[in-house]
Amino acid sequence: MKYGARNTITAKVVSVKKGEVMAQVNFQVDKPCTMASVLTTESVEDLALAPGDEVILVIKAVNVIPVKE
Amino acid sequence: MKYGARNTITAKVVSVKKGEVMAQVNFQVDKPCTMASVLTTESVEDLALAPGDEVILVIKAVNVIPVKE
Amino acid sequence: MKYGARNTITAKVVSVKKGEVMAQVNFQVDKPCTMASVLTTESVEDLALAPGDEVILVIKAVNVIPVKE
Amino acid sequence: MKYGARNTITAKVVSVKKGEVMAQVNFQVDKPCTMASVLTTESVEDLALAPGDEVILVIKAVNVIPVKE
Amino acid sequence: MKYGARNTITAKVVSVKKGEVMAQVNFQVDKPCTMASVLTTESVEDLALAPGDEVILVIKAVNVIPVKE
Amino acid sequence: MKYGARNTITAKVVSVKKGEVMAQVNFQVDKPCTMASVLTTESVEDLALAPGDEVILVIKAVNVIPVKE
Repeated sequence: MKYGARNTITAKVVSVKKGEVMAQVNFQVDKPCTMASVLTTESVEDLALAPGDEVILVIKAVNVIPVKE
Repeated sequence: MKYGARNTITAKVVSVKKGEVMAQVNFQVDKPCTMASVLTTESVEDLALAPGDEVILVIKAVNVIPVKE
Repeated sequence: MKYGARNTITAKVVSVKKGEVMAQVNFQVDKPCTMASVLTTESVEDLALAPGDEVILVIKAVNVIPVKE
Repeated sequence: MKYGARNTITAKVVSVKKGEVMAQVNFQVDKPCTMASVLTTESVEDLALAPGDEVILVIKAVNVIPVKE
Repeated sequence: MKYGARNTITAKVVSVKKGEVMAQVNFQVDKPCTMASVLTTESVEDLALAPGDEVILVIKAVNVIPVKE
Repeated sequence: MKYGARNTITAKVVSVKKGEVMAQVNFQVDKPCTMASVLTTESVEDLALAPGDEVILVIKAVNVIPVKE
């Protein structure tokens, strides 16, 4: 199983809240992991990103797809 | 500083690869963290997601926004 | 009418389910069509994608925009 | 294998174009399929979407994730 | 022409930078406009969003679709 | 504070509508601003985008992230 996405993180379901149409699921990620971001080169230069820098990775919950293998 | 996004993960830059227009940045996430997904209630039921279940969270790199505070 | 998006698929509405804020609409696509994906070159190499390969295209419903012309 | 995404479409790779960082892959979808969109209830009412209506589904290529099972 | 998207902003092209696979286009928006965001109710409560509050709307460039009518 | 996103627009909250899981927030943008789109070079050529062209920028509300600094 190979995904055309750079981030595939093992997680455990903590809670499920179901609405009529949409639902929110919370997860716990226990192990250290790697992540990747694709952005404009212009943005990378604006942030002057370099190895060792600490950042916050902001991800909207709608962009997180849980998969059960 | 408060973001209208459920996922804000502390990470360290590992590598930067710049193309003409787009760039890819890789990160290391060292500490356990929580994550959230929003999906259709129909999908939650299809996957029968329940507390304790193990899943893979798939996230395209274009949906990861690094922020330097 | 020209869209800055590679995928424009003709479809017919099958059902509509309205919640307070969000709604889900299901469609039928009857005719064969072409689709495109943009991903990292790294992912393409991981999947070793080559002409003739069969894949599953996974798309979250929030990323599908219906337009009435 | 179950995905937390409403759209999972079987497709065949037609062409691959690799750049330094990003790549574009084109696919052929041969069989009729169903698709789903999640949008605001406000938008559904603006478009007056009802069963039988014909629409164009616009999807940016960055939101299409190929998976090899 | 009706879009299943809450934000449709009139803009003028300022510059175009083409890479092999991806391109970046910059625009000028001259007129005041309205915008909408959909996020979790949990996030709205975290930010305590209320009429009159000033915020920054962050949007990745990959999520902006230019259309020529 | 620097964001890895090309669009950061100052806006004022106009209204908030909370559902069980998801909420919609409307904003007023009063000042002229610049915006950026990243799309395939193929799409730029299809639309023949050039400085001075007028376009509509279509953005789904789920891709707009309000931030309170």
